[in-house]
Amino acid sequence: MSGDWPILDLGFARLDTRRGLRQGVPEAVLAEGKRPDQIAEIVARLVEDGSETVIVTRADEAARAAVRAAVGGLEEDAEARMVWLRRGVPEPAGTVAVVSAGTSDGAVVREVAITCELLGTNVTIQQDVGVAGLHRLAVALPDLRAADCVVVAAGQDAALASVVGGLVAAPVIAVPTSVGYGVAAGGQVALMSMLSSCAPGVAVVNIDDGFGAATVASRIARAAAS
Amino acid sequence: MSGDWPILDLGFARLDTRRGLRQGVPEAVLAEGKRPDQIAEIVARLVEDGSETVIVTRADEAARAAVRAAVGGLEEDAEARMVWLRRGVPEPAGTVAVVSAGTSDGAVVREVAITCELLGTNVTIQQDVGVAGLHRLAVALPDLRAADCVVVAAGQDAALASVVGGLVAAPVIAVPTSVGYGVAAGGQVALMSMLSSCAPGVAVVNIDDGFGAATVASRIARAAAS
Amino acid sequence: MSGDWPILDLGFARLDTRRGLRQGVPEAVLAEGKRPDQIAEIVARLVEDGSETVIVTRADEAARAAVRAAVGGLEEDAEARMVWLRRGVPEPAGTVAVVSAGTSDGAVVREVAITCELLGTNVTIQQDVGVAGLHRLAVALPDLRAADCVVVAAGQDAALASVVGGLVAAPVIAVPTSVGYGVAAGGQVALMSMLSSCAPGVAVVNIDDGFGAATVASRIARAAAS
Amino acid sequence: MSGDWPILDLGFARLDTRRGLRQGVPEAVLAEGKRPDQIAEIVARLVEDGSETVIVTRADEAARAAVRAAVGGLEEDAEARMVWLRRGVPEPAGTVAVVSAGTSDGAVVREVAITCELLGTNVTIQQDVGVAGLHRLAVALPDLRAADCVVVAAGQDAALASVVGGLVAAPVIAVPTSVGYGVAAGGQVALMSMLSSCAPGVAVVNIDDGFGAATVASRIARAAAS
Amino acid sequence: MSGDWPILDLGFARLDTRRGLRQGVPEAVLAEGKRPDQIAEIVARLVEDGSETVIVTRADEAARAAVRAAVGGLEEDAEARMVWLRRGVPEPAGTVAVVSAGTSDGAVVREVAITCELLGTNVTIQQDVGVAGLHRLAVALPDLRAADCVVVAAGQDAALASVVGGLVAAPVIAVPTSVGYGVAAGGQVALMSMLSSCAPGVAVVNIDDGFGAATVASRIARAAAS
Amino acid sequence: MSGDWPILDLGFARLDTRRGLRQGVPEAVLAEGKRPDQIAEIVARLVEDGSETVIVTRADEAARAAVRAAVGGLEEDAEARMVWLRRGVPEPAGTVAVVSAGTSDGAVVREVAITCELLGTNVTIQQDVGVAGLHRLAVALPDLRAADCVVVAAGQDAALASVVGGLVAAPVIAVPTSVGYGVAAGGQVALMSMLSSCAPGVAVVNIDDGFGAATVASRIARAAAS
Amino acid sequence: MSGDWPILDLGFARLDTRRGLRQGVPEAVLAEGKRPDQIAEIVARLVEDGSETVIVTRADEAARAAVRAAVGGLEEDAEARMVWLRRGVPEPAGTVAVVSAGTSDGAVVREVAITCELLGTNVTIQQDVGVAGLHRLAVALPDLRAADCVVVAAGQDAALASVVGGLVAAPVIAVPTSVGYGVAAGGQVALMSMLSSCAPGVAVVNIDDGFGAATVASRIARAAAS
Amino acid sequence: MSGDWPILDLGFARLDTRRGLRQGVPEAVLAEGKRPDQIAEIVARLVEDGSETVIVTRADEAARAAVRAAVGGLEEDAEARMVWLRRGVPEPAGTVAVVSAGTSDGAVVREVAITCELLGTNVTIQQDVGVAGLHRLAVALPDLRAADCVVVAAGQDAALASVVGGLVAAPVIAVPTSVGYGVAAGGQVALMSMLSSCAPGVAVVNIDDGFGAATVASRIARAAAS
Repeated sequence: MSGDWPILDLGFARLDTRRGLRQGVPEAVLAEGKRPDQIAEIVARLVEDGSETVIVTRADEAARAAVRAAVGGLEEDAEARMVWLRRGVPEPAGTVAVVSAGTSDGAVVREVAITCELLGTNVTIQQDVGVAGLHRLAVALPDLRAADCVVVAAGQDAALASVVGGLVAAPVIAVPTSVGYGVAAGGQVALMSMLSSCAPGVAVVNIDDGFGAATVASRIARAAAS
Repeated sequence: MSGDWPILDLGFARLDTRRGLRQGVPEAVLAEGKRPDQIAEIVARLVEDGSETVIVTRADEAARAAVRAAVGGLEEDAEARMVWLRRGVPEPAGTVAVVSAGTSDGAVVREVAITCELLGTNVTIQQDVGVAGLHRLAVALPDLRAADCVVVAAGQDAALASVVGGLVAAPVIAVPTSVGYGVAAGGQVALMSMLSSCAPGVAVVNIDDGFGAATVASRIARAAAS
Repeated sequence: MSGDWPILDLGFARLDTRRGLRQGVPEAVLAEGKRPDQIAEIVARLVEDGSETVIVTRADEAARAAVRAAVGGLEEDAEARMVWLRRGVPEPAGTVAVVSAGTSDGAVVREVAITCELLGTNVTIQQDVGVAGLHRLAVALPDLRAADCVVVAAGQDAALASVVGGLVAAPVIAVPTSVGYGVAAGGQVALMSMLSSCAPGVAVVNIDDGFGAATVASRIARAAAS
Repeated sequence: MSGDWPILDLGFARLDTRRGLRQGVPEAVLAEGKRPDQIAEIVARLVEDGSETVIVTRADEAARAAVRAAVGGLEEDAEARMVWLRRGVPEPAGTVAVVSAGTSDGAVVREVAITCELLGTNVTIQQDVGVAGLHRLAVALPDLRAADCVVVAAGQDAALASVVGGLVAAPVIAVPTSVGYGVAAGGQVALMSMLSSCAPGVAVVNIDDGFGAATVASRIARAAAS
Repeated sequence: MSGDWPILDLGFARLDTRRGLRQGVPEAVLAEGKRPDQIAEIVARLVEDGSETVIVTRADEAARAAVRAAVGGLEEDAEARMVWLRRGVPEPAGTVAVVSAGTSDGAVVREVAITCELLGTNVTIQQDVGVAGLHRLAVALPDLRAADCVVVAAGQDAALASVVGGLVAAPVIAVPTSVGYGVAAGGQVALMSMLSSCAPGVAVVNIDDGFGAATVASRIARAAAS
Repeated sequence: MSGDWPILDLGFARLDTRRGLRQGVPEAVLAEGKRPDQIAEIVARLVEDGSETVIVTRADEAARAAVRAAVGGLEEDAEARMVWLRRGVPEPAGTVAVVSAGTSDGAVVREVAITCELLGTNVTIQQDVGVAGLHRLAVALPDLRAADCVVVAAGQDAALASVVGGLVAAPVIAVPTSVGYGVAAGGQVALMSMLSSCAPGVAVVNIDDGFGAATVASRIARAAAS
Repeated sequence: MSGDWPILDLGFARLDTRRGLRQGVPEAVLAEGKRPDQIAEIVARLVEDGSETVIVTRADEAARAAVRAAVGGLEEDAEARMVWLRRGVPEPAGTVAVVSAGTSDGAVVREVAITCELLGTNVTIQQDVGVAGLHRLAVALPDLRAADCVVVAAGQDAALASVVGGLVAAPVIAVPTSVGYGVAAGGQVALMSMLSSCAPGVAVVNIDDGFGAATVASRIARAAAS
Repeated sequence: MSGDWPILDLGFARLDTRRGLRQGVPEAVLAEGKRPDQIAEIVARLVEDGSETVIVTRADEAARAAVRAAVGGLEEDAEARMVWLRRGVPEPAGTVAVVSAGTSDGAVVREVAITCELLGTNVTIQQDVGVAGLHRLAVALPDLRAADCVVVAAGQDAALASVVGGLVAAPVIAVPTSVGYGVAAGGQVALMSMLSSCAPGVAVVNIDDGFGAATVASRIARAAAS
């Protein structure tokens, strides 16, 4: 079942260097919880060994600096806390529409957008479309309805997920964000609200997990477009 | 500070028979947690002693039967689990609009509407206006915008509170309902979602607390109309 | 934005009779929280008014009996707690593979499978494939890898979601089930575990929400196959 | 339904510049979660485009400095973490009484008072009136009873909300504060306690949400006075 | 350290028959979680072996019936769910005042009062003294101030504990009750509220633990009176 | 990795008939969540196909009756909610001491003891050894110190786990039980208390999971004795 | 009811300067949540106005420095985070024994001991008496048994409360401490464990609330000794 | 029962200097929550008084520096946050296999490995074997199957515990780690997932409690090997 996929063993990490072949996703390294030197070594070995895009997510400045020092040719986005080496990105196919409830969801929106693009998907972005002013949503609707998959990023009560879920026919991937204060702080309310959505066709990922949402969304969009 | 208000002492209960004078609300007895014979005795004594409306809330069939056996002239609503004796209801003043997200919120809607009416408020009702079909809300909007106070009853993700909060200028009192399954069961998600609402002007009461919402709403509406 | 979609107003319910046209899903009535007579009237009016499939979910025996008494030509599944009238089901397109961790997840598996089929999707089923015996998963793998979307139903620690997520390239929709005892009772652990999955491409729906999972999955599968 | 309200699109934010006309509230910007440069740009554009008061809430020193650098004529309150440009504040109408349980609730009290005043409401303030010394409340009672709406700010067990709720006839808006230690830390106990209040006429907003409380309270007070 | 206290070994239970000598409390059997036949055998052996009062708490009708069938001379209280054999109750010394917030706290009040009396303490009772009507508390205050220890039983927001704590100089033992609905259901809010009390001199026992409160209170009262 | 272990496929269940060979445990069927007819069929097929002991756990009377009707030669224990067919139980090796804090933990104690015995371990039992009477523990100590592994079953505050953990040198497996009321109800407090134990050498299983504790304990004991 | 007690109104604080007369406790100021300048002003005014001991609790270095600068003659304890002015401390009467489970509970132990002493109680201290080494408790037992009230400070699983509760006849006041990691971090487990104690005569205060425990304990001890 | 074990009384700590004799574990000092000078004094006295290995766990740099300054001959590991004096480590017996799901679990892996080694156990280590790439586990399996006890360290959904639990016959001790973000942050999800594992033979310790896991595991392994 587990096949004969190669493993690069660094002692503290075992790299699965052919995941791209097996699952159609590039190598991704979650920086949070790893030391900068570990991240840098992992990225260097992946770059050395493989031929695919390598993405580092949730990387603070120290992590990104360590990677920059180890490998050349990287791109980087501080707001999204990402750094990546672009190699062999497939031709874009399908479209993911990313829509957010507020300006504060911007970091997650960027993580979704960059990841989708690196996975070979077209992306449209509509930010700050909270339901407390529905006319802002009206402007965004044509883009949302034209997409193969919609990603909704929202914190607080995350009501946007249900409203969008009731207006589009494509699958909706909802990302709760940790934006908010009081009971909304940390994103648990947004998460639970999205899971309780009365709209059909909404599935949810972990709090602030823009990368996870993008992975699902781009698979959906690429398959729909092929 | 506490004045010289009379108390009727039944041993197991001390009745505050002039609350109506002091706070403009009728006598209300929360049936849940009391034995039917206790409820009946409380109601009988209140009716005997006072001159105001007496309301029993959250009363199951056994409680309502005990009250019926003890006092004449009652009105009753099984869905709202209420029984009451109407006395000296003030002239209606102001309007409360009650709007619900789904059919399952019906019991709470009725509790709000009956209470508001007994407190001397006009009531309009719009049921099953979930945000997953916004065109249903469009039909309800004129009523909501005409009211002095809007009560929103919703379970699950309670997104309706935010959407309504963004569309009306009157104060919104939100009642989370225990409708829903999975994480939504019990109404905690609806409560937290309403408290996290990004719309201005929304305040919240306890889960399924239609009586509480109506008390606040009718005070607001009557004051606005006077 | 909300268009001119028709509404059937029953007082206690407002029926959105053209959702099928708008979102490609049949009419669905969540029975839980509604009285049997309400459910029956809603179904009768939907059947009378429209031309699409009508599905009632989470319907106990009393609810199903009321619907049976009101409308003819229904199909029913007691384990899945569903009753439905099949009308205009589209030609099957795309395949959803449903895989469960244990026998106790059977009710959710059936709800997913019936809904997918009514939405016009082919379905394959692999039950009782818990990760404590990986050789059982090996047998299931060809089916999972052939599908356009995989739905994983699991309770307890829901480890199956991560294991499957690491083995397939299609989007995975994970449904936590309320199966389990001690800390696992109610499905919160399964839900949180699925949201924390380290595998790429997994999105999650509410606990026991087979209908929700099927809605997302069939949209994905049909789009992929078109 | 959503009308033709203008939107100012900054890319990372869409400004709803006529909310004042629609809902009778000034433009408010929640600073928390936004970068100082974003906040400054939003405020500058609102000031440039509109004619209403602009309020920034939950703004730390960095956020306030950025706004000060971008726009002239501002007022500021460090304790309340607010900065605002006063334009076209309506004639004061109605009175909101703000009462707090302890000195530590001071920041929330100030946020309520400033917001109410900017929304055109008269404000009276009674601080440090905890129920462990009821004679302190006696002194405050005349002010509370004279108000059109009472805002109660309290942390820990928030018992003040119930005591005040039993003594006044006006609507009570309760703001739980995050003051306290041990189980009281963060304000969840105060929130839950206020939602469980046995006093009639109490509605609740999010933890530390002085702005939200003021929005509801001033709507109530202004309507009552008109 | 553990001395040579005798043990009666029944296999499923080991009876500590001289706890009265060691700790000044009678034998108490918690019925909940035990089978009626086990409870009856335990009580019979304690009665046979010892010379002290035996108390069975949290005993439903089946448990009480089994005990009645096994031992003669018992007293019983259905509301408090207690059955007991009175033997060698010490001369009353000291006074415990029991005060409750509402009629629904009656079962806990009775459990406290009966236990205190069996432990040799005088008891005064004041029921339904909720803080939403402070004048009811005024009537109770002389009794509370005269006691050596005050037990406060309250559900919902349990504000009574803080108010009483601010008015008396004796130690206050607070018992949260499971009375209430919505967020108050089960007594967690009352518990947390009591633990967060800003009044000095309040300690708390488990939810609905009238027996525990009485044990502490009677120790305090008897020591104070000696 | 997953080898070529046989699977018996019943559609709703896939039976892993050689787990005994692979992991040294008999076939075990968790009855909870399965229908009686499913359980009976599973047991019948396991008995027919294999040569090992078959154990059904958490089986209520209906489940046990169905199994009894399907297979002969069974043993059964109503308190432990178990039914089993004994086949090829290995020679006892090693000793597990089971100790409980109270009579109410009896069902878990029996589940541990029966399972250990069926897995080929000697068992000693000490019940009702709560720490509130340490002299009861003193009597039990020789047995506990003689064992190769100690299983501690306790509810409420589960203090027994720490006390035993400080007195023995063998590994301690702690089983929290759902015994208790108020905050202790359901066993979460016991679970968390055991996980927080300051004693060395304590590991914990799920609430009421006597079978799980026995599986670990008998592996430990048999290995130590070999 | 609330009498004519004097109030010192500072605007941000209302000082209850005769609490000592009314409740037998000195003036206490909770520093946490107040600004240093506020604390200093409160203390200065209390000292100026009254004749009793003034205690500041939970005061960090900045708070203590501000008080030192404002008032002379203070005593201070950095570990307990307290500063106080001793005036008119009553003759010691009664004895409180303070016992802790570990060295890390030292700050709470000191807060209890200092407060008890300032309230006029004798204090004995036994630290680091965790139940994982019961022989350490044996040494402490004579002191505990000689006291009028025992205060148990413990974090993690707080098993010490139950063990002590089973060994002494005096009331036990249990203080959960926030010591511990993993599930024990923050003290919730210790709190819940203490509330679930199976020992008679244990009451509990808030997490880390040494001052609260001392207030109750010294009242008990002084009353017992009088 | 508690014997005559010696105690070293430092006032703030009571040292149990013969635990090694009694329970076969060295002296261990939990640094977290103690001041560096306290830790240093405790270690110095243990070293002075005894003849066994002394281990300090969860020691940050300040704590380790204080110990280094007080005692010579120490070994130290910054990642594991440990410092220790090796004395009389027993001959290695038995083998513990430590396996982790990801690089971020490295600190816990080291704490387990160092502790096991100091307790006299052989250790093998397999890191970064997450179930999202099962082929990485295949490589590790021979080591896991050869061990007397397997320790699984995993965060997020901790699915590795179930997968390993299904593949080995030795007892599995699972350590949840606090690695992860969103709902996984802090390790509660990993903990609950491990407790809910459907695999036989898994017991769990506190979050990040590598020392606790090692204590249990080495006892198991040494007993199995003897």
